[in-house]
Amino acid sequence: MMIVDDVENGSLGPYQDRPRTFPNMRSKPYTPLIFRILMGINVRILVILLLLGFGYVFYIGASTSPIIVFVFSVCIISFLLSIYLTKWVLSKDEGPPEMAQISEAIRDGAEGFFRTQYGTISKMAFLLALVILGIYLFRSTTPQQESSGIGRVTSAYITVAAFLLGALCSGVAGYVGMWVSVRANVRVSSAARRSAREALQVAVRAGGFSALVVVGMAVIGIAILYATFYVWLGVDSPGSMKVTDLPLLLVGYGFGASFVALFAQLGGGIYTKAADVGADLVGKVEQGIPEDDPRNPAVIADLVGDNVGDCAARGADLFESIAAEIISAMILGGTMAQRCKIEDPSGFILFPLVVHSFDLVISSIGILSIRSTRDSSVKAPIEDPMAILQKGYSVTIVLAVLTFGGSTRWLLYTEQAPSAWLNFALCGLVGIITAYVFVWITKYYTDYKHDPVRTLALSSSTGHGTNIIAGVSLGLESTALPVLVISVSIISAFWLGHTSGLVDETGSPNGGLFGTAVATMGMLSTAAYILTMDMFGPIADNAGGIVEMSQQPESVREITDVLDAVGNTTKATTKGFAIGSAALASFLLFSAYMDEVASFANESFKQVDIAIPEVFVGGLLGSMLIFLFSAWACSAVGRTAQEVVKEVRRQFIERPGIMDYKEKPDYGRCVAIVASASLREMIKPGALAIISPIVVGFLFRVLGHYTGHPLLGAKVVAAMLMFATVSGILMALFLNTAGGAWDNAKKFIETGALGGKGSDSHKAAITGDTVGDPFKDTAGPSLHVLIKMLATITLVMAPVFL
Amino acid sequence: MMIVDDVENGSLGPYQDRPRTFPNMRSKPYTPLIFRILMGINVRILVILLLLGFGYVFYIGASTSPIIVFVFSVCIISFLLSIYLTKWVLSKDEGPPEMAQISEAIRDGAEGFFRTQYGTISKMAFLLALVILGIYLFRSTTPQQESSGIGRVTSAYITVAAFLLGALCSGVAGYVGMWVSVRANVRVSSAARRSAREALQVAVRAGGFSALVVVGMAVIGIAILYATFYVWLGVDSPGSMKVTDLPLLLVGYGFGASFVALFAQLGGGIYTKAADVGADLVGKVEQGIPEDDPRNPAVIADLVGDNVGDCAARGADLFESIAAEIISAMILGGTMAQRCKIEDPSGFILFPLVVHSFDLVISSIGILSIRSTRDSSVKAPIEDPMAILQKGYSVTIVLAVLTFGGSTRWLLYTEQAPSAWLNFALCGLVGIITAYVFVWITKYYTDYKHDPVRTLALSSSTGHGTNIIAGVSLGLESTALPVLVISVSIISAFWLGHTSGLVDETGSPNGGLFGTAVATMGMLSTAAYILTMDMFGPIADNAGGIVEMSQQPESVREITDVLDAVGNTTKATTKGFAIGSAALASFLLFSAYMDEVASFANESFKQVDIAIPEVFVGGLLGSMLIFLFSAWACSAVGRTAQEVVKEVRRQFIERPGIMDYKEKPDYGRCVAIVASASLREMIKPGALAIISPIVVGFLFRVLGHYTGHPLLGAKVVAAMLMFATVSGILMALFLNTAGGAWDNAKKFIETGALGGKGSDSHKAAITGDTVGDPFKDTAGPSLHVLIKMLATITLVMAPVFL
Repeated sequence: MMIVDDVENGSLGPYQDRPRTFPNMRSKPYTPLIFRILMGINVRILVILLLLGFGYVFYIGASTSPIIVFVFSVCIISFLLSIYLTKWVLSKDEGPPEMAQISEAIRDGAEGFFRTQYGTISKMAFLLALVILGIYLFRSTTPQQESSGIGRVTSAYITVAAFLLGALCSGVAGYVGMWVSVRANVRVSSAARRSAREALQVAVRAGGFSALVVVGMAVIGIAILYATFYVWLGVDSPGSMKVTDLPLLLVGYGFGASFVALFAQLGGGIYTKAADVGADLVGKVEQGIPEDDPRNPAVIADLVGDNVGDCAARGADLFESIAAEIISAMILGGTMAQRCKIEDPSGFILFPLVVHSFDLVISSIGILSIRSTRDSSVKAPIEDPMAILQKGYSVTIVLAVLTFGGSTRWLLYTEQAPSAWLNFALCGLVGIITAYVFVWITKYYTDYKHDPVRTLALSSSTGHGTNIIAGVSLGLESTALPVLVISVSIISAFWLGHTSGLVDETGSPNGGLFGTAVATMGMLSTAAYILTMDMFGPIADNAGGIVEMSQQPESVREITDVLDAVGNTTKATTKGFAIGSAALASFLLFSAYMDEVASFANESFKQVDIAIPEVFVGGLLGSMLIFLFSAWACSAVGRTAQEVVKEVRRQFIERPGIMDYKEKPDYGRCVAIVASASLREMIKPGALAIISPIVVGFLFRVLGHYTGHPLLGAKVVAAMLMFATVSGILMALFLNTAGGAWDNAKKFIETGALGGKGSDSHKAAITGDTVGDPFKDTAGPSLHVLIKMLATITLVMAPVFL
Repeated sequence: MMIVDDVENGSLGPYQDRPRTFPNMRSKPYTPLIFRILMGINVRILVILLLLGFGYVFYIGASTSPIIVFVFSVCIISFLLSIYLTKWVLSKDEGPPEMAQISEAIRDGAEGFFRTQYGTISKMAFLLALVILGIYLFRSTTPQQESSGIGRVTSAYITVAAFLLGALCSGVAGYVGMWVSVRANVRVSSAARRSAREALQVAVRAGGFSALVVVGMAVIGIAILYATFYVWLGVDSPGSMKVTDLPLLLVGYGFGASFVALFAQLGGGIYTKAADVGADLVGKVEQGIPEDDPRNPAVIADLVGDNVGDCAARGADLFESIAAEIISAMILGGTMAQRCKIEDPSGFILFPLVVHSFDLVISSIGILSIRSTRDSSVKAPIEDPMAILQKGYSVTIVLAVLTFGGSTRWLLYTEQAPSAWLNFALCGLVGIITAYVFVWITKYYTDYKHDPVRTLALSSSTGHGTNIIAGVSLGLESTALPVLVISVSIISAFWLGHTSGLVDETGSPNGGLFGTAVATMGMLSTAAYILTMDMFGPIADNAGGIVEMSQQPESVREITDVLDAVGNTTKATTKGFAIGSAALASFLLFSAYMDEVASFANESFKQVDIAIPEVFVGGLLGSMLIFLFSAWACSAVGRTAQEVVKEVRRQFIERPGIMDYKEKPDYGRCVAIVASASLREMIKPGALAIISPIVVGFLFRVLGHYTGHPLLGAKVVAAMLMFATVSGILMALFLNTAGGAWDNAKKFIETGALGGKGSDSHKAAITGDTVGDPFKDTAGPSLHVLIKMLATITLVMAPVFL
């Protein structure tokens, strides 16, 4: 699986006397098929096609609900804005040729890996689509479907189509994230030569571009599916499906998105950290050369990794989070509206789409509020970039509170319970506060301004061993506060919803679950801005790498170093945010699953009783799945890193001239090793996550059949899902925080504390950082995706367990 | 909290020219109060008192059931056998004076720490007893109690008395374990000078002594309590309590035992590993001197740690496991016998006591089957001690299968279901097989004969970082197989019980839970032999330390090295065994808790529905408790180890003569530091474990009261217990296996692989070993206790949640 077709040589910096230093990783530039087709079309025809597309979209939107039209309009405006942001970023210069050359090498490596990786993923997705088709063709239809005339075949095609669309969009989201980052990195490096503020702005706008595209695509994708199904199936006309059942048809979209995101995150995460660990272990620890030094043969692989691991994977991850959360909230909204006999349920169903439309608007304002200083040609003194980003965040969050309140009044007002919207607005506030507190807690545990990281750094002074023990303890301990916060917010949002005044026929309150759904939406109501801050991190990191490799003056390096450090913090906080929202969303998806099972089995399914041995065993297996998945994700990085270490050591031995710049390292070889190893290694954990719930559900279904225990398969899977969610949340918190803290403890020592760079403390801290790498960037983020994918897979595969 | 009153100096080996080298840690020899009182009594009076005691015991036994008389007789015979074993061990010589001196220093340190530690624990136990008394005096009585005339006050005193007796017995179990190990260690060292076989026999018999005492005491303690309550309360006479309700009165005993075991394990675990890590980090890593070298100032503290951490704590731990498991099985047996209207329920209730009586008999045979070769004065070639121990285990396990089958036929035969006993015998077989498979899996993951540890050792060759990543992955992965085995055995034992033919009034099968209980007993049916093998480990380890410190010839060191390596394996396998039985037992305790709640609340309590948000939150909090507890246990070791590192470094700097034996290190200072720090550090995690379920249960009880949700507190605590159990099992498996594997990867490299001692791989492997120390000997074993303590605390504190 070689992706290096042709390694040519070029000239650069210290290697001026030689031909090309950076390998050209492929023989011809790569453009995904869909873009090639688009580019092949005459521009006028393209415009006409686009207009036709818009026309169709607005036509079906208008036939569905004015809310859908609103959502469409906002999304299209956001896309236009994102095009403006790209143009703005691309109009910046690429700096001197040596920078451009490095950037090109990174781009080639990233795109080459992306192509192979997504090739593999798409093959698996098609295979899975066939499996789903098979299952749905042989499933029994639900009573609702029968009454609305949706046959088995229609239902099968709908689910598979939604799955494939979700997978495609998720893939595009990943591609967009990477596309902009490999182009923005060099422009940030170049801008850093002029001013810190300008560099910051370029990085933020590049991140903003992909954030707007990712969120916008998730929203418009679901809206189009919803509207199409609405019009096609003649929903709400007599004898047809009810609108409250419509959201259940969308679960395939969520599953497709999770499926691609899982493999994107695993493959990308293994790639980036194997390269990073391998490069650090030989470069920094054994040879004592700085990070991103051009003499390190693994340095290009490391920089490529930032793009495929952090940008592409995080794009797919956030896309999947938002899609899963919107769909589950729509399902719950529909169920509640039906139970409470609300006259016009569309407000409750479409509420999440509107919240994310406003998310696009307010995040755009937040992004645009970060501006260059007037006179960007003058070198301004370096401001704290974190403060600037925080200011943008504050703007966004204030707007979020306002628009969220407005949306609840607009859509959730019902005459049956006139004050319900107020309760739901408070639920949203709970979510927004939870997000804020989560970000704060993550910062407390991972920022070296606070005690935990300082204690960790101190423990490095007594050796590698105490550093690791302290880091593991810190990570385990850091799970406590977030869990308390999540507990409080689940319960308070549930009770706010419960007491909202919405009651079902029997008069019992019914809004509790929808309350937690609204809180989740509140938490995600600034998702686009958060994603911007997250994308900012790897772009800044890459820019720093390019500056170091092209040997720019110290002052430029200083600017990118500051941006890089800020990027580390924003990356860590985004993870806290992601896991918090996953924790809330999983509870929704779990409820949606129970609704789905009840609807298929045509009997009540409201309880998952862990006092039944089989159900308890399901829980055990669920938690075990999390441990095993994390093990495989970490060991994949460890194994691949060892290959890199051996290759780098070999190059240093066989080409002794590398160290004094006389010989050039073979970057392409490391890129090829990492790429092929991470493609190989991503399969095992990914397959585990997908196959095990299906196998467990099926086995217990059969066991239940023979022991006369109805719905046993569904119950066991429910327990598995629940225990896996809880263990997954804790494990992800542990892995993310420990990793982040180790990284920053090392950075703290590098500021000169406890002996500074090169001291024994520093060496111990580097060991911690190395261990933390797969924790925080491979296993941890993959768990975020896994938690939600387990929920969507059980939703889609429910017929297998029944 | 200084336990070093007087540091004197003595003479030894290389320090011949100086006075005492080893500190006398206290001014006068310490004997616990109870022994002092006993020793103060005239021998004849003592004999008369003992005979009176026996008379009383047999009188109440005879008034209760012939089964109780059988249990008493077996226990008393075992105690006599254990006295024989002690005499045999103590009759061995203590070797040359330098050995005896070191041994004395270890004994002083261990007994000094034990005194202070158990002083603290007993104060806490009395405080808690008062709290329990208060709660029970204000609780509501159950309908059964009312009908049987047990008032609130009687019930309160019974629970508190049982609690205090359990705590006392647990303390004595710990003391006995330590008492024999500090005396046997030097005798093993001395015997190693003559023959390997003799050294092995001394270590095994010393371990056997404490195993028989620990198991025998657990059995006889419960039997005496049971018989006393039976006679005192006039059980089964008209208008009194029914015998099937009797076991619920014993839960206080289990809680007392768990309470002491938790603090014993925490304090001892922190002590032993802080000393070990501290000694290794400076001695082995920085100074390059071997393990247990007399120049290392922390070496005596390390050797003391083996006794207080491994021997004393493991004694209390196993005592608590057996007690908790017997009580929960008795409760379930009673409940089932009542539901199925079995005529003579005593067989079902007393079955666990009989199983453990047979355990004493067959384990004694296993222990005695390990004999010296005929002519022990001739140095026989070293046989593989593991093979000898395994042979003893095989003997024991074959006998266990036979006696278990016999016991089921004797006690579980009932005319209502004539073949039920056969089903239960098969359940026992499931348990025995599970134990065997668990031991095998643990060996696979921690023995360097197999792939996992070899891969781990290989990953050391690429640095500290990859070693840690590989170890963490290995540990996480090693949870999978045990969980699958536990799952299969829970389900198969449940179904064997379910289909046993025992039905309640309505004709529905009722033996399922008792089936899992019987499987748990099967698993623990060789507990005394397993405990012997476990105790063997630290004794051999200590003997090796004494040999090294007294600078014996290489040939002697070789023998103790082999024994030490075997001890490491047996220690690891015991942990697998302990966690497996904890996993099974916790499911029983959980069911017992639900029975108890139902009986107090006087309404059915059969379901724990995790789809209710509060219950889900309880689960989240339960899992979080495990993470936080592990964090605090590990960080306590890390912090204390850092203090040791600083002290050792200080001594090496201030007394430069230490390294060439010209100056003697101050061992007493390290002992004092470790002792006071571990007493301080054990409080936080211990208090967390005890307080959090009470607080959570109480808070949700109040919340449930205000929101009209009956039994909310009890439900939330049930979920908390269940999730904590599952997470605890997985976390303990992870910590134990990772720690054991790191230890043996280091040992594998020390055999000469991958560069051998002193190579970079070896250094990386030592880092892994250091990290693994608190994992496998502090946090891991404490979690075993925690899992069961959570179950017993919720049983005892149930009135608070209702």
